[in-house]
Amino acid sequence: MNAEVVSVGTELLLGQIVDTNAALIGRMLAEVGIGSLHRQTIGDNLDRVAEAISNAIARAEVVITIGGLGPTEDDLTRDAVALALGDALILDPQLEEHLRTTFAKRKFPWLDVQLRQAMRPSCARPLPNPNGTAPGLICEKGGKVVICLPGPPAELGPMVDNYVKPYLAEVSGGGVILSRVIRIIGLGESIVESKVKDLLASRNPTIAPLAHTGEVHLRLTARASNAEQADKLIAPLLAKVQERLGSAIYGYDTLTLEAACLDLLRQKSATIAVAESCTGGMLGARLTSVAGSSDAVIGGAITYANSMKVKLVGVSEETLVQHGAVSAECAKEMAIGARELCPADYALSVTGIAGPGGGSIDKPVGLVYIGVTGPGSTEAFEYTFIGNRTMIRERSVQAALFRLRELLIRDR
Amino acid sequence: MNAEVVSVGTELLLGQIVDTNAALIGRMLAEVGIGSLHRQTIGDNLDRVAEAISNAIARAEVVITIGGLGPTEDDLTRDAVALALGDALILDPQLEEHLRTTFAKRKFPWLDVQLRQAMRPSCARPLPNPNGTAPGLICEKGGKVVICLPGPPAELGPMVDNYVKPYLAEVSGGGVILSRVIRIIGLGESIVESKVKDLLASRNPTIAPLAHTGEVHLRLTARASNAEQADKLIAPLLAKVQERLGSAIYGYDTLTLEAACLDLLRQKSATIAVAESCTGGMLGARLTSVAGSSDAVIGGAITYANSMKVKLVGVSEETLVQHGAVSAECAKEMAIGARELCPADYALSVTGIAGPGGGSIDKPVGLVYIGVTGPGSTEAFEYTFIGNRTMIRERSVQAALFRLRELLIRDR
Repeated sequence: MNAEVVSVGTELLLGQIVDTNAALIGRMLAEVGIGSLHRQTIGDNLDRVAEAISNAIARAEVVITIGGLGPTEDDLTRDAVALALGDALILDPQLEEHLRTTFAKRKFPWLDVQLRQAMRPSCARPLPNPNGTAPGLICEKGGKVVICLPGPPAELGPMVDNYVKPYLAEVSGGGVILSRVIRIIGLGESIVESKVKDLLASRNPTIAPLAHTGEVHLRLTARASNAEQADKLIAPLLAKVQERLGSAIYGYDTLTLEAACLDLLRQKSATIAVAESCTGGMLGARLTSVAGSSDAVIGGAITYANSMKVKLVGVSEETLVQHGAVSAECAKEMAIGARELCPADYALSVTGIAGPGGGSIDKPVGLVYIGVTGPGSTEAFEYTFIGNRTMIRERSVQAALFRLRELLIRDR
Repeated sequence: MNAEVVSVGTELLLGQIVDTNAALIGRMLAEVGIGSLHRQTIGDNLDRVAEAISNAIARAEVVITIGGLGPTEDDLTRDAVALALGDALILDPQLEEHLRTTFAKRKFPWLDVQLRQAMRPSCARPLPNPNGTAPGLICEKGGKVVICLPGPPAELGPMVDNYVKPYLAEVSGGGVILSRVIRIIGLGESIVESKVKDLLASRNPTIAPLAHTGEVHLRLTARASNAEQADKLIAPLLAKVQERLGSAIYGYDTLTLEAACLDLLRQKSATIAVAESCTGGMLGARLTSVAGSSDAVIGGAITYANSMKVKLVGVSEETLVQHGAVSAECAKEMAIGARELCPADYALSVTGIAGPGGGSIDKPVGLVYIGVTGPGSTEAFEYTFIGNRTMIRERSVQAALFRLRELLIRDR
């Protein structure tokens, strides 16, 4: 069985948006065992989009369109799919009611143009979109399937995971493809790869390394007649990787590093606070991105100005004069101060130069100190990160969480 | 004149690589005034790649292939182009000599498979590749042009800048396509569209709405013989949009909402502080994502636990008991407290229920209060956002920045 993706949007052709959605769907198709031989990208033009969908239908059993489901006049995918399938476009009263309720709840003014998002080909089944107003659509006609997904990645991603992937796994019939992701921190990609090099030749399950900001994932993917069989295939390879990588594995599948840290804190009923300079709140944001984080995260201080470092977390004027705000001493005092301020059992601090300005020969852009303190110890770690302002800040947060995890494991 | 990009590579269909090359070429085509109506992505299969190129030649004057120029057996683009153009593939002695010299210089062992990279359609002119071994190719035949570029971005990018862009600028008659982006806050996509509906028919410049989280962009794109002419074409349409949308326009082109807020603060030499509950630092992170934000951002408090709201920003116990932490009263006190804590001229606060847990009938998930205070006023605004935890938090930050901007404009 083959699928063909049709990405719709002039902004894609103009290169104003990079098509990450198509790549995400490519990975999903591989996981459910559906092949893909062509992909098309078309601007916002009814005839051309309809023609592209017709061509895709002629070549593949499953066609997946991305984008063009908004309420405006250049959102043409619904119309194009109806044309290509020779189906009528109808107003779905349930979709209309849902839209009107959503708008009323958000106190947004209603405009009748919004009704476009309640239209669908008569053969279509809507897919709920809790993250936006455009429903997805699954259209089954003449032995072919056309699936329409909204363009914003925050809407498309959950819809793919919750509806499209399970649907296609069933439609493709050929058993299941099951993946486990092993999440590794503190080892670079080439080191991880060297440790599992002999396992990379495995064909079922396959094993593939993926590098992310400050961490490496190994994806183990098995194909079998059912999930239980797939699990059985994965288990021995998983055990081998666990043996070789040990505590560098912080979690599995969708568990994030911040969630792993919170789990370790909960195991000892401990709490955490932060003091952030160059990250300006990113570390707190990441810790609190985990649902239920309030049982461990107390809060903290965003000490962007030096005066705040003194006032809120008690960094001494002497430290600022002698060592500067970007120093191991300042990072330690910030961490200790955050722990006392809240109060909490553990605290993390970040102080550094995110750039692009503010660097010197002694203290270049990318120099960052991470402070970490707990009931028994206080340490600071120096990093020199490369990359732009965003990357330096993201890597700082990742390093802070890594250091917190190390300390929590030591204190266990 | 139109161009069509054909990206070649099974790894693109599998989503193992995101096609940033195609976006880069899309931007380049716009800059030299060449339109683009279709794009194709094809796996490493000779017949399918040749067919895709044939289809592209039938639709466009210029076809640009990306990838498939390596020395291995699945690098098929050269063969496919020769097939599609009905041209012979020949061994170019100069290319062979250059390859052999390069290998000798780099002390790489020579393998005869490498000779594939010295092959070209007889009508082709090679493009030098100082960053790799695959030459690019420009093939002119029967009034059509096929340009072949290597897949690695570090090889493709310089080749596009140094050879392809100048060549196409000449071929297309020296015109340019110039875009301006108008960035709008506080109005939904359908409202924005209704206000500029009659302008959407404009063909040069064109005008296209794009929705983002909590804001809408209008892209004005003009085609002219040079940049100055394009600016002249855009100016009257830009003026009309400005007249209709007024202060809902917060900026242009790449200026973000946080940068626009910081500009307004700087104009009055004012400073800002934050107090964040459900966003846990995201607002501070976004304000400090702007380089040079330290001249306006003092810092703030992450008051995730209620105890922190009392201790750090002076929310009264009475407010917490009578109205709860998620209330207009609490948001106001948090903002006032943050302003005093730092101290700063302005302060923003966020308190809400990001979910998925913690909601009730009275206070559902998505209920968020934004507090904003300045020298002359303190207000709180109630929102009910839909979406998952991440989206509720992102929308909260966006709403806070919107309210800050409103106040700063009022105080101007």
